[in-house]
Amino acid sequence: MKHTILALALVGAFGVAQAQSSVTIYGTLDEGITKRSDTTLAIGKRDNNKLGFKGVEDLGNGLKALFQLEMRYESDTGTVESGSRPLFQGQSRVGLQGDFGMVRLGRGTTALIDAVDLVDPFYGLSSTEGFKTDLAVAGYTSDPLSPAGNSGNRFSNALFYNSPEYMGFQFNATVATKEANGGPALVGRGTTALPQYAANAEASVNPYSVSAIYKNGPALFILATERNAVESKLISAGAAVNATQELKLTALYARQDQGHTKLTNPKTKAWVVGANYTIGVGRVLAGYGQKSPDGVVKTKETSVGYEYNLSKRTYLYVDLSNKKTASSIRYYNLGVHHNF
Amino acid sequence: MKHTILALALVGAFGVAQAQSSVTIYGTLDEGITKRSDTTLAIGKRDNNKLGFKGVEDLGNGLKALFQLEMRYESDTGTVESGSRPLFQGQSRVGLQGDFGMVRLGRGTTALIDAVDLVDPFYGLSSTEGFKTDLAVAGYTSDPLSPAGNSGNRFSNALFYNSPEYMGFQFNATVATKEANGGPALVGRGTTALPQYAANAEASVNPYSVSAIYKNGPALFILATERNAVESKLISAGAAVNATQELKLTALYARQDQGHTKLTNPKTKAWVVGANYTIGVGRVLAGYGQKSPDGVVKTKETSVGYEYNLSKRTYLYVDLSNKKTASSIRYYNLGVHHNF
Amino acid sequence: MKHTILALALVGAFGVAQAQSSVTIYGTLDEGITKRSDTTLAIGKRDNNKLGFKGVEDLGNGLKALFQLEMRYESDTGTVESGSRPLFQGQSRVGLQGDFGMVRLGRGTTALIDAVDLVDPFYGLSSTEGFKTDLAVAGYTSDPLSPAGNSGNRFSNALFYNSPEYMGFQFNATVATKEANGGPALVGRGTTALPQYAANAEASVNPYSVSAIYKNGPALFILATERNAVESKLISAGAAVNATQELKLTALYARQDQGHTKLTNPKTKAWVVGANYTIGVGRVLAGYGQKSPDGVVKTKETSVGYEYNLSKRTYLYVDLSNKKTASSIRYYNLGVHHNF
Repeated sequence: MKHTILALALVGAFGVAQAQSSVTIYGTLDEGITKRSDTTLAIGKRDNNKLGFKGVEDLGNGLKALFQLEMRYESDTGTVESGSRPLFQGQSRVGLQGDFGMVRLGRGTTALIDAVDLVDPFYGLSSTEGFKTDLAVAGYTSDPLSPAGNSGNRFSNALFYNSPEYMGFQFNATVATKEANGGPALVGRGTTALPQYAANAEASVNPYSVSAIYKNGPALFILATERNAVESKLISAGAAVNATQELKLTALYARQDQGHTKLTNPKTKAWVVGANYTIGVGRVLAGYGQKSPDGVVKTKETSVGYEYNLSKRTYLYVDLSNKKTASSIRYYNLGVHHNF
Repeated sequence: MKHTILALALVGAFGVAQAQSSVTIYGTLDEGITKRSDTTLAIGKRDNNKLGFKGVEDLGNGLKALFQLEMRYESDTGTVESGSRPLFQGQSRVGLQGDFGMVRLGRGTTALIDAVDLVDPFYGLSSTEGFKTDLAVAGYTSDPLSPAGNSGNRFSNALFYNSPEYMGFQFNATVATKEANGGPALVGRGTTALPQYAANAEASVNPYSVSAIYKNGPALFILATERNAVESKLISAGAAVNATQELKLTALYARQDQGHTKLTNPKTKAWVVGANYTIGVGRVLAGYGQKSPDGVVKTKETSVGYEYNLSKRTYLYVDLSNKKTASSIRYYNLGVHHNF
Repeated sequence: MKHTILALALVGAFGVAQAQSSVTIYGTLDEGITKRSDTTLAIGKRDNNKLGFKGVEDLGNGLKALFQLEMRYESDTGTVESGSRPLFQGQSRVGLQGDFGMVRLGRGTTALIDAVDLVDPFYGLSSTEGFKTDLAVAGYTSDPLSPAGNSGNRFSNALFYNSPEYMGFQFNATVATKEANGGPALVGRGTTALPQYAANAEASVNPYSVSAIYKNGPALFILATERNAVESKLISAGAAVNATQELKLTALYARQDQGHTKLTNPKTKAWVVGANYTIGVGRVLAGYGQKSPDGVVKTKETSVGYEYNLSKRTYLYVDLSNKKTASSIRYYNLGVHHNF
C-alpha cells in the first residue's frame, strides 16, 4: 500500500522525508533560599535558568552548520525570565563554523560581555552576589532601545563573528542593524515632550562590540569595546591568572561614556578584583569592586561564595554579599545549582 | 589545530565542555469534542496538557539530583494554559533525593493536592467532568495572591519535602515564602478603597501544606491540611480501597475555613465518593459529590466516564457530567488522551 | 528498601511508572540580512522559524496514535512569532492514523492551505519574497475572529481529516467549531458602535476547508475551497508539473468572496505562475503573480530566489522581489536556512 501523495501533502505536517534530527537539550536549574536585608526571605536564584536546544551539523571539508535556541525562566514561579522577557531570551542564533572561525546571525550576548565573563571572579553570574550586570560593565546596557528590561548584555538583529585562535589570540566582533525593537521613548538630552529617542526609535548608529582575547600559559587577557544603539561607549580590560593550581586571580576595569544621552556625569568607571580558590571538591569565590559615577555616590560591592560540588553537573552553594551605595544592602543565598 | 581559546570563550555559547545531557521529554496531548448545555459545541480537553523536561543524576551513595520543568498549554488554540499562565505552569523544581526522602525548591502542586488526587475517582482530572478544582477541595485555592487564574493548587517560591516510606506511612510537606507574586488586590474584610491585601501584597503568614499517606494492603488513606497566603485553611481526609481486582472505591472529605478574609459564610464543606471499574481494556469512572457553603445553595455534581485503552499510552474517552448549583449544567466530552 | 508509596504519591511528579518516551525534536532556524526599499537594513527571515515536538505510537493492526506541537519564534529577537502569537503557533494536534486515513483534533493549517503550498513556486514560504500570505490566497484569512495577527492560514478548535490515496486522489477536510477565540470586534457591514461581529464573537457558521489532490505521473492538481468564521469564501485551483527532471512549473488561481462582511468590492481574484529549476546542488525559484480587487489598484509581485545546498538540511539563499501596488517595494534577502 503506497501513500505517496499523502506523504507529499503532509511534508511539513509530519515530516516523513525529514533527515535524522540531532538536537541536544541542555539547561540549568538553580534555586536557593535568599535573604536581602531590605526584603522578606525568598526563593531565588544564583545563576540564570536556561532550557536550551542546540545542534551541530558536519557539512564536510571542516565546515559545520550550528544553531542554538535558549529559553530563560524563573524557577521559583515558572514564568519566562523576569515574567516578560522574550521566550528565547538566552539566545537564538544560526551560523557556520570553519577554518575562518564562526559566523552567526540572530540574538545573543555581545563579544564584550563574553570576554568580560572570563575575568569575572563570579564568572558572569548575574544575580545580586555577582558583579555582571552592574559593576563589571560600569552600569552599561547593550540594548537601551528594546522594551524595558529586555536584556542588558545582548544584541538582537546582529551578526556575530569569532575568529579561530592564532598565536594565542582570538578576535570577536558583534554588529547589529539599526532596526527598531519596539522599546519605549528615551528622554536623553531631549524633553519628555520631545525625547531624544522616540518610542520604537531606530538606533542612531549601528551598535557594535569587539573583543580581543590573548592566552599565554596560565594567563589570559581581554580588551574589549562596545557602542550601543544610543551611542553609549564602553571600554573593558581585564586579566585572569592561574597563580597556582588551586588559585585563580582576576582583575577587570570598565569605563562607560554616556555623553551622547547624558548632560551631567556622563562618565562611569568601575573595577573588580577577585579570586577563586579550589579546596578538594569545593571552591571559594571572592570579589570586590567599585563603580564611580563622577560627582555622585560610589557603589562598593564585596561578595564571597562557596561551592561544594556533588558532581560535575551539580553543586551546593552559599553566598554572602554586601553592596553599598547611599546605604548598604546585605544579601545571603543558599542553594543548589544543577546543569542538565 | 587547537582551538583552546575559542573553546574557552564559547563555553556557555556552545558548551564544549558540558557533561553528557540526560533529559527526558514527556507530555500529554488530550483533546475532545465537548458540549456544555449552556454553550456551543467546542474542542476542549479532559486532562491538562503538558510538555515537560526532566532528569535524574546519580550522585553516588544513594543520593540523586533531580529537576523537572513542565509547560502547560491549550491544545485547541496552541496558547499557554488559559492563554496567560506561566510558561512552566505545571512545575519548575530542582532538588535532591536520598535516604532522607526528597527535598525540592521551586513551584509545583502542594502536598495536600498530591494526596487528594490519590482518592479522587477521576484521579485529579481538573476539567468540567472532574472534581479537582472545586468539590475535591471545597472551593479552596492555594495561591490567592498571585495574578488571577495563575494556579489554584500550587505554591510558587516553595520548599517541597517528601519522606521515604516507613511502615506504610509517608509524610509530605510544602512551605512557601511570604514574598509577593504580583497579584491584584484582594478586598477581603477591607473595602475597595482599602483592601485587606493590596495589589502585589506579601502573604500575611507562610503558606504551608502537609499530608500523611498510609497504605495497608489494598487500602490507602490520606489526611492533609493546608493554609494559604491569606490564611484560608483547608483540611482533607480520604480513602481509596481496591475492593476487588476490578473495583476501586474512593471517598474524600474537605473543609475550608476562610474566616480571615470572609465575614459571612466563611466555612465550606465538600465530599466526593466514587468508583473505578475495569472491564477488559476499558475502565468506568463514576463519582458524586456535594459542596455546602453555609447558608448558600449547595453544589451537586455527578460524573461518569469511560476510558477505552488503545495502548498503555493512549486511550479514547467519553464523559457525562451534571453540575447543579442554582441551575444545572450538563457536560459531554468525547476525545483522545495521549501520553508521550 | 521499597518505596512503593513514595512512587505512588509521586506519579505525575516524577512519572516513575511512565512508559518509554519517543519524542522527536525538530525545527528550522532561518536568518538572513534583508533590505526593503522603504526600511533600514535588517536581520530577517525567509521561512517561519519552528521548534517542534512530535511522535508516533504504533497501536497495532495498522493503527497509529500521533501528536505534534510546534512553536514558532523570531530568530532575530528571540520572541514568539510576531512577539505575541500563541506558544504553539505552528500547530498542536493529536489524532489517529489507519487505513481510514488520518483524523486529528486541535490547531493547524487548513486543508486548503496545505494544498496551495504544493503549487506555490516558493512552496509556501510566507515572507516578503514568497506569495503565501497574500497573493496565493487572494488576501484571504482563515481566522478573522481571533486576536489580531493570530494566524492567517490556520483553524483553532478544529477537526482535521486526510484520506488515504486512492487511484492518485487524496481528499482532505478541516472543520472548526463556532466557539469564540477572544478576538476584537469586526465592523464588517455594521458600524463602529454596532459591529457586525462583537469582540469575542462566535462564528456565524462552522468554518470549513476542503481540498482534493490528484497526482498523475509528473503532474499534480489541487482544487480546494474554504469558508471562514465570518463567511468569507475562498476557492483555489492549481497545478504543478515536473516538465523535466530539472524543471518544475506551477500555476495557481484563487478567488475570494467577502460579500458577507463587505459592501463594496467584496470579490478578489489572484493568480501566481512560477518555476523551480535545479542546477547541480543549487535551485532557482521564480514566480510572478497578480491580485485584483474589483475597482481598486492591482497588486503585482515578481520574485526570484536561488538556493545553494550545503547539505540536505542546510542551504544558503539569496532572494530578490518586487511588489507593486500604488507604489513599488523592492526586497532583498541573503541568508542561511537550517533544518534540525
